[in-house]
Amino acid sequence: MMKRIAVLTTGGDAPGMNAAIRSVVRTAIYHNVEVLGVFHGWSGLINEELKLLDRRAVSGIINQGGTILRTTRCREFHTEEGKQRAFETIKRHAIDGMVVIGGNGSFAGAHEFFKRYNVRCIGVPASIDNDINGIDLTFGADTAVNTALSAIDNIRDTSTSMERIFVIEVMGRNTGYIALTVALAGGCEDIIIPERSYDLEAICQDIARGNARGKASWIIVVAEGAASATEIARKITDKTSLETRPVVLGHIQRGGRPTAYSRELALRLGYEAVIRLLAGEYDEAVGISGNKIVTVNLELAIQKKSLDVERIYKLIRILT
Amino acid sequence: MMKRIAVLTTGGDAPGMNAAIRSVVRTAIYHNVEVLGVFHGWSGLINEELKLLDRRAVSGIINQGGTILRTTRCREFHTEEGKQRAFETIKRHAIDGMVVIGGNGSFAGAHEFFKRYNVRCIGVPASIDNDINGIDLTFGADTAVNTALSAIDNIRDTSTSMERIFVIEVMGRNTGYIALTVALAGGCEDIIIPERSYDLEAICQDIARGNARGKASWIIVVAEGAASATEIARKITDKTSLETRPVVLGHIQRGGRPTAYSRELALRLGYEAVIRLLAGEYDEAVGISGNKIVTVNLELAIQKKSLDVERIYKLIRILT
Amino acid sequence: MMKRIAVLTTGGDAPGMNAAIRSVVRTAIYHNVEVLGVFHGWSGLINEELKLLDRRAVSGIINQGGTILRTTRCREFHTEEGKQRAFETIKRHAIDGMVVIGGNGSFAGAHEFFKRYNVRCIGVPASIDNDINGIDLTFGADTAVNTALSAIDNIRDTSTSMERIFVIEVMGRNTGYIALTVALAGGCEDIIIPERSYDLEAICQDIARGNARGKASWIIVVAEGAASATEIARKITDKTSLETRPVVLGHIQRGGRPTAYSRELALRLGYEAVIRLLAGEYDEAVGISGNKIVTVNLELAIQKKSLDVERIYKLIRILT
Amino acid sequence: MMKRIAVLTTGGDAPGMNAAIRSVVRTAIYHNVEVLGVFHGWSGLINEELKLLDRRAVSGIINQGGTILRTTRCREFHTEEGKQRAFETIKRHAIDGMVVIGGNGSFAGAHEFFKRYNVRCIGVPASIDNDINGIDLTFGADTAVNTALSAIDNIRDTSTSMERIFVIEVMGRNTGYIALTVALAGGCEDIIIPERSYDLEAICQDIARGNARGKASWIIVVAEGAASATEIARKITDKTSLETRPVVLGHIQRGGRPTAYSRELALRLGYEAVIRLLAGEYDEAVGISGNKIVTVNLELAIQKKSLDVERIYKLIRILT
Repeated sequence: MMKRIAVLTTGGDAPGMNAAIRSVVRTAIYHNVEVLGVFHGWSGLINEELKLLDRRAVSGIINQGGTILRTTRCREFHTEEGKQRAFETIKRHAIDGMVVIGGNGSFAGAHEFFKRYNVRCIGVPASIDNDINGIDLTFGADTAVNTALSAIDNIRDTSTSMERIFVIEVMGRNTGYIALTVALAGGCEDIIIPERSYDLEAICQDIARGNARGKASWIIVVAEGAASATEIARKITDKTSLETRPVVLGHIQRGGRPTAYSRELALRLGYEAVIRLLAGEYDEAVGISGNKIVTVNLELAIQKKSLDVERIYKLIRILT
Repeated sequence: MMKRIAVLTTGGDAPGMNAAIRSVVRTAIYHNVEVLGVFHGWSGLINEELKLLDRRAVSGIINQGGTILRTTRCREFHTEEGKQRAFETIKRHAIDGMVVIGGNGSFAGAHEFFKRYNVRCIGVPASIDNDINGIDLTFGADTAVNTALSAIDNIRDTSTSMERIFVIEVMGRNTGYIALTVALAGGCEDIIIPERSYDLEAICQDIARGNARGKASWIIVVAEGAASATEIARKITDKTSLETRPVVLGHIQRGGRPTAYSRELALRLGYEAVIRLLAGEYDEAVGISGNKIVTVNLELAIQKKSLDVERIYKLIRILT
Repeated sequence: MMKRIAVLTTGGDAPGMNAAIRSVVRTAIYHNVEVLGVFHGWSGLINEELKLLDRRAVSGIINQGGTILRTTRCREFHTEEGKQRAFETIKRHAIDGMVVIGGNGSFAGAHEFFKRYNVRCIGVPASIDNDINGIDLTFGADTAVNTALSAIDNIRDTSTSMERIFVIEVMGRNTGYIALTVALAGGCEDIIIPERSYDLEAICQDIARGNARGKASWIIVVAEGAASATEIARKITDKTSLETRPVVLGHIQRGGRPTAYSRELALRLGYEAVIRLLAGEYDEAVGISGNKIVTVNLELAIQKKSLDVERIYKLIRILT
Repeated sequence: MMKRIAVLTTGGDAPGMNAAIRSVVRTAIYHNVEVLGVFHGWSGLINEELKLLDRRAVSGIINQGGTILRTTRCREFHTEEGKQRAFETIKRHAIDGMVVIGGNGSFAGAHEFFKRYNVRCIGVPASIDNDINGIDLTFGADTAVNTALSAIDNIRDTSTSMERIFVIEVMGRNTGYIALTVALAGGCEDIIIPERSYDLEAICQDIARGNARGKASWIIVVAEGAASATEIARKITDKTSLETRPVVLGHIQRGGRPTAYSRELALRLGYEAVIRLLAGEYDEAVGISGNKIVTVNLELAIQKKSLDVERIYKLIRILT
């Protein structure tokens, strides 16, 4: 039976991480299991930055962005020596299992760690990119999408008032999830995403045709992994002779007060992660699929997630 | 083949209705079908308040709360004569089918209308209460939940700073959906909802015990259909001699800029409603279940929807 | 020369209090003066709840609503014995001066304390009600006004969509400041505030006339100190036979992330309070008047503040 | 006596322009003066894009960003022929006076127009940059500052969680107003603005020293007119070997729902502009100074506005 588990957040921070930490800590304590918070992700495991967390330690954080445990992208953990040192911390502190809150890269690390040292890890999918395979949604994505959408609503005011073409770059290194979602919800005219080839010539013809019939306001959403807004904007100007403005939303999408859904999901998944860890499960991620809690083996979870791109793209084309 | 359809919004307004209207109009036009907008819900059908909507008529509304078609709760439609007059408008304007955007009561009306006059209606579930059976979520609920949550976050500041007990009444005449969701996401201490009996004596004992060990801040969420915040607050004060404050969030939960998810769902469902109507389906609602589009017969859709109350309640108790 | 000061927050919490605390602490430390934080307002002074605050203690709070020092309305301080005990704490901890962050009642207490025990107090005007005389604005008011306005914008969606009359009660026990400001900025039709008699008969005639020419949406803002929204709504229904809805915004106006201006003002005034205390000033409040920092004797500061009601009322009547 | 005036918005759009248009239209109509709305700024005057605006035309826009009259930056107006054609429109439509809502460049145009053709123009200062001399605040600035601050709060979550250095570029081509205000209110560590020379070497030493004592999170705000965030970030990395992230907030600062203060100011100034125009005043801007309405000759209004930079900079250095 487990007596002590550890929890850490790794990779980019995502809104809801604090809610997940709260859930992990309180669920464990409710089941009479101690929780060590590891600071700075894997790096803190290597360097033994741990602290026992009680119920109080996680009060007042449910609506805070970021993570009270801090997070890093830790290269050292990917070395043999790094993992070895991390494992020694695990042994030294009698840690029976770990809850790893993070995205794709974090789960890859957890899986490696399990394979090499048999450390029992459960992943809680926290990412603004929605990049975990086998589940519907990582918990930070809803907040990131709303933040980006709010920015697009603002830009729409200027796009309409000044009749200008905007090219807006949103986050998403390997996936167009945010781009697709905000383009649809924002009534944007076109998208450029990694999952789908694009024809800038055709986009420019659309714009030119629209311009000819009086449609002068235009918003094109670009996922950072597919292209640079600045370059796309310049090329459109080159081809159409129309003024364009690029906007790179950047890191405003990562922080902020988590939405209701980001919190709800973080709380549910944090709870489930502990329950399953205590029940003897490991090397898997908990997640939501079709409104139900599911688990996905970590090796599968880090595979490329596929998006129903064509369906949404078609909607965007019909509706805007 | 359908040549002309009508769209209306009825019952209480919900954020995303305008996005749904946009979607219905543009999807229909894309399929070479005309759309008449009916103003003031069923009442406008009775009184012949219709207007042909083109693509332009629905531009710039995707992010606006409320409904450009207006809405009412129309008693006359529930009389034989009302329905008869509404049907005459349908005939006079050669309306082949209708998209009815609304909640429980709206679907009941649509179903009656179909049964009595064979008018082909498809329902699009718009409600802040999430009160449609057979689907996961009505599209206004996500916005309402976030608005209520934001209010609760604000009140938490005072609850913590002044160490006070707050009783917050949220919308939900027949359902504790909003209450459950915001209580969980807001880290609230207890809930009172129609789906679950409550023991005020036990709540007061909890509060008194908490107070004894120094926990002076407390938030209890009440669904309007279960109890009155003002009365609950008074009773708690009576039993515990502690100061309490009731807050009734009321109509702030109904309006506002729709969230990304409310818009996305409204757009998808508006599109699906038209596609299905054109494909010959009727007397059903479109909705989302497990991330997939489903249809539910209207008669079923208006049955009492069940909530997984105990699961969430347990989470609330463990996590706060 | 002062070596140690104390800071406390009293009365109702107001957004920006944490920014003010941060400013007081860091300004004092910058001038090599120690700062004791007093918890729970005057009550904490009486019961000796104090803690030395360093720079770190006030980091990460600038954008948080509420007050990390907590606050109460303390009746005991208004007794001779209460003030005596508070004064003993002052002596015991060698406190040379105090920064009192709060509103009208807080300044009255500070002034009494000075008169009775010669304790050097400087007031920093924090209140959502903007109830301090001799200055333009208390620092929480801008946030409260924006919160109330956002609520009114939401309600406007429903008021327009359902063509309903709303009566919205905002905070303001002795003043119509919030009511006047949000009614103007929210495009509301009428106001009921303590500073101005109102003629409900005339309001109802306005509504009836509007209704006759097709204007069915109506928002009347009521300051809590002037009337009850519930009663006004009922009376309007009685007189006009039109449906009305009351909404009492209540405590959502008190908390929340402070606006830029609330923070800026809190930071500036916290700084000025310390500077002036160190320079030997006392028994006064710092504030802003015409964009300049001014001081007002506490006795004057707690006098009834007058509002330019007629000018704003006229604007409301012309513009809506 | 004036019988007909025109209103236009020019230059970059600013939140509150719609509230100002509403105020101009309704105040004029209240005084029995007709209002022509000119679309697309000066360009619409040249090309005769005008429309009579009634009270209804400006309802429902008080809380909308952008401008229903559209705006452009019009080069043609700065030619002799452009102004001549604009003047012919003025004559043809019997326009007795104009309300010009815009910023620095707009007022320069209005002043030229007056000097050359004696057209009576009154300026209403709308700009997110707060770049009008002789008054305290242009009406869009408060909204822009709050939008930028909200973005900075989000980025702070990541800056703290990942312990990273961020360089955030805000708007302000000739002025550091937004930068100074958000840096103070956002608790940012340093600023780079046009009004003040900066020493990147010293900033880097600060950062290095901070880093040595464990302070790893850092936000530097840059006004677009002073430097490029991307370049500053790269230079800091070069000098300190620490990872940095640039964020360019860009056009999200221009749009969005106006804050209470932006609306209030827009409404007041729109009203005052009409009153003064009708009273025979012209070639001046209305504005607020020390909470009072003032007028400034347009020639003076477009002079370089000075900011109390050192005072705020000192506060930033002491408080963060």
